[in-house]
Amino acid sequence: MEISLLKKEQNDFLTQTGPGTPMGDLFRRYWHPALLVEELPEPDCPPVRLELLSEKMLAFRDSSGRLGVIDEFCAHRGVSLWFGRNEENGIRCPYHGWKYDVNGNCVEIPSEPEESKLCDRIKLKSYPLVERGGVIWIYMGPPEHQPELPEYEFALAPPERRFISKRLQETNWLQALEGGIDSSHVTWLHGKNLNSDPLFQGSKGNQYNFGDLKPVFEVVESAGGLNIGVRRNAEDNQYYWRITQWLLPAYTIIPPRGDHPIHGHFWVPINDHQNWAWSFDYHPNRDLTDKEVQAMSEGKGIHVRYIPGTYIPLQNKSNDYLMDRAAQKAGISFSGIDGIAMQDASLQESMGSIQDRTKENLTSTDNGILMARRRLMNAGKALLEKGQMPPGSSPESQRVRSAAFLLPRDQKFQEAAADALIAVPGKPHVTV
Amino acid sequence: MEISLLKKEQNDFLTQTGPGTPMGDLFRRYWHPALLVEELPEPDCPPVRLELLSEKMLAFRDSSGRLGVIDEFCAHRGVSLWFGRNEENGIRCPYHGWKYDVNGNCVEIPSEPEESKLCDRIKLKSYPLVERGGVIWIYMGPPEHQPELPEYEFALAPPERRFISKRLQETNWLQALEGGIDSSHVTWLHGKNLNSDPLFQGSKGNQYNFGDLKPVFEVVESAGGLNIGVRRNAEDNQYYWRITQWLLPAYTIIPPRGDHPIHGHFWVPINDHQNWAWSFDYHPNRDLTDKEVQAMSEGKGIHVRYIPGTYIPLQNKSNDYLMDRAAQKAGISFSGIDGIAMQDASLQESMGSIQDRTKENLTSTDNGILMARRRLMNAGKALLEKGQMPPGSSPESQRVRSAAFLLPRDQKFQEAAADALIAVPGKPHVTV
Amino acid sequence: MEISLLKKEQNDFLTQTGPGTPMGDLFRRYWHPALLVEELPEPDCPPVRLELLSEKMLAFRDSSGRLGVIDEFCAHRGVSLWFGRNEENGIRCPYHGWKYDVNGNCVEIPSEPEESKLCDRIKLKSYPLVERGGVIWIYMGPPEHQPELPEYEFALAPPERRFISKRLQETNWLQALEGGIDSSHVTWLHGKNLNSDPLFQGSKGNQYNFGDLKPVFEVVESAGGLNIGVRRNAEDNQYYWRITQWLLPAYTIIPPRGDHPIHGHFWVPINDHQNWAWSFDYHPNRDLTDKEVQAMSEGKGIHVRYIPGTYIPLQNKSNDYLMDRAAQKAGISFSGIDGIAMQDASLQESMGSIQDRTKENLTSTDNGILMARRRLMNAGKALLEKGQMPPGSSPESQRVRSAAFLLPRDQKFQEAAADALIAVPGKPHVTV
Repeated sequence: MEISLLKKEQNDFLTQTGPGTPMGDLFRRYWHPALLVEELPEPDCPPVRLELLSEKMLAFRDSSGRLGVIDEFCAHRGVSLWFGRNEENGIRCPYHGWKYDVNGNCVEIPSEPEESKLCDRIKLKSYPLVERGGVIWIYMGPPEHQPELPEYEFALAPPERRFISKRLQETNWLQALEGGIDSSHVTWLHGKNLNSDPLFQGSKGNQYNFGDLKPVFEVVESAGGLNIGVRRNAEDNQYYWRITQWLLPAYTIIPPRGDHPIHGHFWVPINDHQNWAWSFDYHPNRDLTDKEVQAMSEGKGIHVRYIPGTYIPLQNKSNDYLMDRAAQKAGISFSGIDGIAMQDASLQESMGSIQDRTKENLTSTDNGILMARRRLMNAGKALLEKGQMPPGSSPESQRVRSAAFLLPRDQKFQEAAADALIAVPGKPHVTV
Repeated sequence: MEISLLKKEQNDFLTQTGPGTPMGDLFRRYWHPALLVEELPEPDCPPVRLELLSEKMLAFRDSSGRLGVIDEFCAHRGVSLWFGRNEENGIRCPYHGWKYDVNGNCVEIPSEPEESKLCDRIKLKSYPLVERGGVIWIYMGPPEHQPELPEYEFALAPPERRFISKRLQETNWLQALEGGIDSSHVTWLHGKNLNSDPLFQGSKGNQYNFGDLKPVFEVVESAGGLNIGVRRNAEDNQYYWRITQWLLPAYTIIPPRGDHPIHGHFWVPINDHQNWAWSFDYHPNRDLTDKEVQAMSEGKGIHVRYIPGTYIPLQNKSNDYLMDRAAQKAGISFSGIDGIAMQDASLQESMGSIQDRTKENLTSTDNGILMARRRLMNAGKALLEKGQMPPGSSPESQRVRSAAFLLPRDQKFQEAAADALIAVPGKPHVTV
Repeated sequence: MEISLLKKEQNDFLTQTGPGTPMGDLFRRYWHPALLVEELPEPDCPPVRLELLSEKMLAFRDSSGRLGVIDEFCAHRGVSLWFGRNEENGIRCPYHGWKYDVNGNCVEIPSEPEESKLCDRIKLKSYPLVERGGVIWIYMGPPEHQPELPEYEFALAPPERRFISKRLQETNWLQALEGGIDSSHVTWLHGKNLNSDPLFQGSKGNQYNFGDLKPVFEVVESAGGLNIGVRRNAEDNQYYWRITQWLLPAYTIIPPRGDHPIHGHFWVPINDHQNWAWSFDYHPNRDLTDKEVQAMSEGKGIHVRYIPGTYIPLQNKSNDYLMDRAAQKAGISFSGIDGIAMQDASLQESMGSIQDRTKENLTSTDNGILMARRRLMNAGKALLEKGQMPPGSSPESQRVRSAAFLLPRDQKFQEAAADALIAVPGKPHVTV
């Protein structure tokens, strides 16, 4: 596998997602998690400021319970509608009382004479929102290309079987994604957590992880992205395989361990320097236990503790992630940072908000990253040049799972375990 | 009335006031409020850093009680004179003891030999200051064009009849001004305050405000700016008129209510992204009551509460203005922000520090704003191209008042109520 | 002496020290203080982030006690090695376990196959470090031009005779240096401290300082920089001389007072907007007393109090240096700032992070500054154009001292007191 450096232009191409950029156009062909349902819990609740793909918006739920997301700023004189009143099926600008519905239509300009047509002409930008799996999803692309609703397995799982959280990450989306598909760092960065975190511990798989520090990558294209296969030596002439799923552009599913839930992430760009790291757990064929839910709520596994009232991690750049040198020295934590999620985030943020990919030294264990970059680049160009729909936006391509299993060394995972990678509601996950 | 959008260049023209800009030149033809007298209370008190029109200065009161404002930085090696000693009729640089008088003249360089002429050559930039009406005024323009002292009515009112405050606003001056001459937002944004604020409540006028939500604007040029007339329907075939005064460049007077004082503002640019919002109340023919003064001190009416030791509002951008969604929901406050002044400031700051005026949708109730922009633009050009003195700098043009009254529907306010708009010391205000 | 203003390009030339700049190249021909030994106290202690000359590095002490400073970021994918584990003679990246030794050599890439040569190819930038006089010194220049180890007198003094501290200064290095060689501000800015600070008081020299406020400068080139002689009138037809040493590029030694220790500074650029102000005291022929050491620890003399856990002064720009106007008014402090070090730093920071030297008015007491600028400029050009080694990097040129003494008025200090300016271990200092 070639080891290639990105040029500056290529790094820009992959990392910029604002309006009018190629990768921004690509992102605008998918449904993305926008908000937790808990953020807009009931009719006429407080509206929420929402920035995604470098666009500033306001999301709200109207008196009839309908969801809407519109331009943050009033068409009249540019005031933020966040200060507005959410009332009687619309949000009313606090300045002069202009009112908008969930679709951004101006429905009233109180100061205008009866015969005025001004209100009919005024329409704020708006995007469709839909609620599914505890998440409010947004589609920010051209209406004529709107894909079917997302059918990622976690999004269809019943509430008792899933747990979802989000946190602010102070980096570009791409370096978060690249962490998510990088199976080889687990033994190092998270090594101490595998056997202590209640959502990871006690799996036979962990032993294989530690038993072979030279994993071999086998990365295969899937309909919607990549199957990133990683094998480690196991007993009896077998390999221990862990298959991570990546679906374009920013969805990753980590292989489960034992009877633990499956974990995954969406890495949704806020702007070029920040992303929302969405983290979920779901179990395909049983309810989550109270103990699991409590652990997740307390920031175990891939979740975090927050600064109260925010989705900003308590451990963050401004406090050096509460680095504990004594714990690092004592070997309780490899990097001194507590918790799997912030171990990843701290290192990704330490690269700078946009990693300079013209200065890397990639190895064969970075194959997943390299192939993801290439596929993103190709999909971005195909969309730009030929208008070609990018992979991963159709429901069929979304019905996939991660898995972990043992196979005889002479078998190819993509054939022998093809079934394990297909999501079927209620079907047990394949895991060691 | 045409509905016109500004071009980027026009927005820059109107909003930039640094040295050498056209609007900066225009501002430099007027006296402006610089400091409260309480900021320089006595001889040899601590000097004060003062930035206005993007110039950094130091103001002080010398041993003889004389006021001075000079360049903030020592001519020698650029140290801030804020650290200097205010002593024996001059401010002495703390670094090497260079000393300057209130006019910026260097009066001593201790290290120089007796025969040295260096001190005579050194002169810091300085501007005239004058004390009037509790305010220290500054004139930053060409000495040969210095206008007569300001005769705005509040500045001539006796201390017992006036109350003055200032607060930092994190926007360009123009969007503060445009809020000040925008009579139509009152019923919405401040609607809940009209009947509860001790400095606004209990006036018959408030009922007219609420009784007609489609005010009609009639804006007429005055010698110094505009009379912005707004009429609402009233009983007996009458109109309820409210006339706001605007004097170039940045002085506005709000119409009074009942026996309440008259309110007004100066919006003085600090730099292109901040302004000092000066707020005053005065009653033309009676002393303010203790209750009124206390209410003003506590941030009622158009005044605010401060972060102690500063003129920065306690409610500000960094804390979302202490937005109270419950109060908003309960209808106690329309935008959830407490207090009239911060209701305005919060929305104006939400537009960004310089509003993008290329993206508005103005209506007929924005006529005051449109005509003010045009008059500013014309005055700026006339000064730039023909050296023409801009309107509003002569004492005669400053002797105006706001007023509110009822008139038969067939009468023009500018004739029928011309007298009400003229300031005469001790004459009662015309108000409903 | 000519009074000349710098052009913008000249100011840039002197102030910019990043990689590839002429002054940056010059700085890279010397050993500089990088860290206090207390910052890397023992084998495998926590590594320290270190930015110097606009380069971001990581310093650490390995299991064998060896010091190393390497690029802060891992060669693999750019993670900060600050999060790494310092263990078994190397620092291990927390992400994938890549390991580096003190010389920046990659010594292990755990995921690579046995036969891989990748590790051999990977080398992080590194620089030599050396411990001497309580300080860890760094040489960041071309290896073939590495000078002999520094022999500044304080660095060779036994621990009992020296005290060293450092503090962050929020300015370019040059304005810190220019403060350090400016003998004429002492009577003003520090006037109140000379007789009260335990590390300055009680010297006859102080009386001469106050007795003549028109010091005369006589600045003479030395092998490594300048002897900045300043004379003041004294009794019996004598002059009181104070000779400050400056060695290129950023080392200054203040003349001592009475039996007090000699003081000095290094002003080491962090980047173009910050520098480390290194401050030391040493006595050439006796141990420091407990009282002296305690005073230094408490921020007396040229030292400061810190924000706990940092080298950031407790008095700093964000709190207006805890300016005390009452103390200023009462004459306890000339500028109202407590302590000699922060008196200097506050004023230097008040000039802006890079002083605009195109706007000065220099006098004859600024001769030291003018000559230092010229010598720096010439040395920078000679290095750039002819590859000429700059002055002050050889041990001989470093064996100098400051001194203070009385001389008959007709004697030249550089001849009559030449001996006093030469550092000889154990030889008493010449001081009044």
